[in-house]
Amino acid sequence: MALIVQKFGGTSVADPDRIRAVAEHVAFTKGHGHDVVVVVSAMGKATDNLIALADSVTSTQTGREMDMLLTTGERVSAALTTMALHALGVDAVSFTGSQVGIITDTAHRKAKILEVRGDRVRQALAAGKVAVVAGFQGVSTDKEITTLGRGASDLTASALAKALGADACEIYTDVTGVFTADPRIVPQARKLARIGFDAMLEMAGAGSKVLALRSVEFARNHNVPLHVRSSFTWETGTWVTDEESTMEEPIISGVVTDVSEAKVTIVAVPDRPGISATLFEPLAAANVNVDMIVQNTSHDGTTDISFTMPKADMANAESIVRQVAGEVGATGVEKDGSICKLSLVGAGMKSSPGIAARMFRVLADLGVNIEMISTSTIRISVVIAATDMERAARALHTEFGLDSGAAYTAPLPERK
Amino acid sequence: MALIVQKFGGTSVADPDRIRAVAEHVAFTKGHGHDVVVVVSAMGKATDNLIALADSVTSTQTGREMDMLLTTGERVSAALTTMALHALGVDAVSFTGSQVGIITDTAHRKAKILEVRGDRVRQALAAGKVAVVAGFQGVSTDKEITTLGRGASDLTASALAKALGADACEIYTDVTGVFTADPRIVPQARKLARIGFDAMLEMAGAGSKVLALRSVEFARNHNVPLHVRSSFTWETGTWVTDEESTMEEPIISGVVTDVSEAKVTIVAVPDRPGISATLFEPLAAANVNVDMIVQNTSHDGTTDISFTMPKADMANAESIVRQVAGEVGATGVEKDGSICKLSLVGAGMKSSPGIAARMFRVLADLGVNIEMISTSTIRISVVIAATDMERAARALHTEFGLDSGAAYTAPLPERK
Repeated sequence: MALIVQKFGGTSVADPDRIRAVAEHVAFTKGHGHDVVVVVSAMGKATDNLIALADSVTSTQTGREMDMLLTTGERVSAALTTMALHALGVDAVSFTGSQVGIITDTAHRKAKILEVRGDRVRQALAAGKVAVVAGFQGVSTDKEITTLGRGASDLTASALAKALGADACEIYTDVTGVFTADPRIVPQARKLARIGFDAMLEMAGAGSKVLALRSVEFARNHNVPLHVRSSFTWETGTWVTDEESTMEEPIISGVVTDVSEAKVTIVAVPDRPGISATLFEPLAAANVNVDMIVQNTSHDGTTDISFTMPKADMANAESIVRQVAGEVGATGVEKDGSICKLSLVGAGMKSSPGIAARMFRVLADLGVNIEMISTSTIRISVVIAATDMERAARALHTEFGLDSGAAYTAPLPERK
Repeated sequence: MALIVQKFGGTSVADPDRIRAVAEHVAFTKGHGHDVVVVVSAMGKATDNLIALADSVTSTQTGREMDMLLTTGERVSAALTTMALHALGVDAVSFTGSQVGIITDTAHRKAKILEVRGDRVRQALAAGKVAVVAGFQGVSTDKEITTLGRGASDLTASALAKALGADACEIYTDVTGVFTADPRIVPQARKLARIGFDAMLEMAGAGSKVLALRSVEFARNHNVPLHVRSSFTWETGTWVTDEESTMEEPIISGVVTDVSEAKVTIVAVPDRPGISATLFEPLAAANVNVDMIVQNTSHDGTTDISFTMPKADMANAESIVRQVAGEVGATGVEKDGSICKLSLVGAGMKSSPGIAARMFRVLADLGVNIEMISTSTIRISVVIAATDMERAARALHTEFGLDSGAAYTAPLPERK
């Protein structure tokens, strides 16, 4: 008999019908003799609705009060899911993050988990009950209600799985697993049977929405295998594990597209020491979430510096950069809100030279202009025009053998 | 500088605009140098909506899970009200029932308060903050989240006022105080300047919706003076205090009308010992909330027994009574869903004989048929046809000098 943590996201508990479906899913697992701990997110858009409600009351929102407000969403889901289990004759009990002893630091809205006690969950399991835990929340060392950040119900699930020594942590979502690309953009995208923590981490960092970055970080750091699967089917999803535990590692795990960012460039800025600090310190002070940074090689004493940030931060960033530009004597500032960050991710890259070169060649053959480049040991990201996204993503998907299941772990095909 | 507990009901925090208005009201009080503890109910129909949501998931609803679900409503109000106070520059902090140490027994959905610790509220007040407490909830001796029953935010307020030794407990509602009758039914109804706990208790028991019965009981038992007033005006409302503290006591405090009940009669049941038990035991077992009971004098060995209950319980009660009727050989069962319970309430009754006789005379003169009668030392209730309600209530209001302010505490006028 295994101990299984099952996490269900907002779309899985969006309405009474889906909540009943989740309960049947849990009951089925329980019925096969497993101990089950359920972690639920808020129903559908419940969290967004609470935020909108707060916004309509005032823009003066402290983290503490927002946490008091937002944690109610997951509690509603937990209570309703537990009732649905009772209706199926399954003995179950709901818990808040505080009740299960998810102890966090005092950083409201983005609290870090310091400890997971889990005593009441263990007691419930020992009594043969399903424990239904409200995700996304904990209680701080100051005894205040805290939240772990958006999408952190995954984190609650993996943290509980670790603390309870669960055999598996299943992350149920509205897709059937982790894909080699977004099927809406690359029709021939395939579901991965498995992926390593590092590659999954890079995919999340590159903009993949399947798993929250911090959840993958936690799972990797504590080696909690995650099984990403759909709550609407029983098909096996994607296992996210450490490389060692997987027999084979694909060269390339996937192509990730992200159109959520914008680009700002400061043109012909005098290329002197400390110029970057002068530019990025005020941006950091203004909480502009800078992602990629590229500084061109200097010519005639000036250089261009480009960086990307969430679209929402662009206006703020532009005004800051214009001020800096004036102070340091740059000739201009350019912005571009319609870009796409296109990334190739795969742990196999480490041992396969020339991936970047082949990626650039494919884009060149398509006449796609590369505006920015950044790389890690297992990721290559380029910024291109959003209008080039689809054909570029599809071509790369094909080029790196992601289209055909056979090529999944095979050596790279010769280029035609 | 006084310590004032201010409780705002669901209509007072029904939307963002009203929440801001409540915050301004609290800020005004705080601005006059008073310490303020705010107790809030759930927004408007929030609790009803959560109950409807649970009903749409399943009819299998344990008290524990319903409490986990319903307590979120008051927490949302508390957080939003606190944010609105911050927006006005008022230092404030929200608390759940658990956080302020409202310790209850383990009876979910109708828990009784065992102790109010209030440590965190005292700390907040000592730090110059307004404490905003989520009403209606507590934490049980088993460390479970509990609720105190519908309308129990008033109870939270009076319990906190007692525990903190508050100078006043203000109950803000959508009317300006306690009236001598429902102004919608008796246009000449007057607001009472003050009323005794016992009379207020009888009015609540007779169907007055201004204050929840248990809140008045608590306030009386712990002698917490309540000030019932409107959150939409600053006019003085009605003080509910113990008789001793009021210099004068009206003969009659008011006429209370209640159309929320229905009547069932078991006809010509053999009049033998234990017949009442045979009838009411199964009703109690089925949680039928029986209010008035009248058994007519026996004639030729049989008697009629009539009782009232909430309309919602009528169908359930009727089927039970029909079964009993068959067993004991009664000739029939009658039901009536369109009745009105009309009550005269006033502590002055105790020392003024003949009130009942004059009440019956007034109704007789109007040709209003009295179907049931029940009395206490300071209340006389009759059941009449709902269609007779308005003219009966108005005539009694006039008869007992409630129309004219002058007659408020004057000896009863001679009948014309």
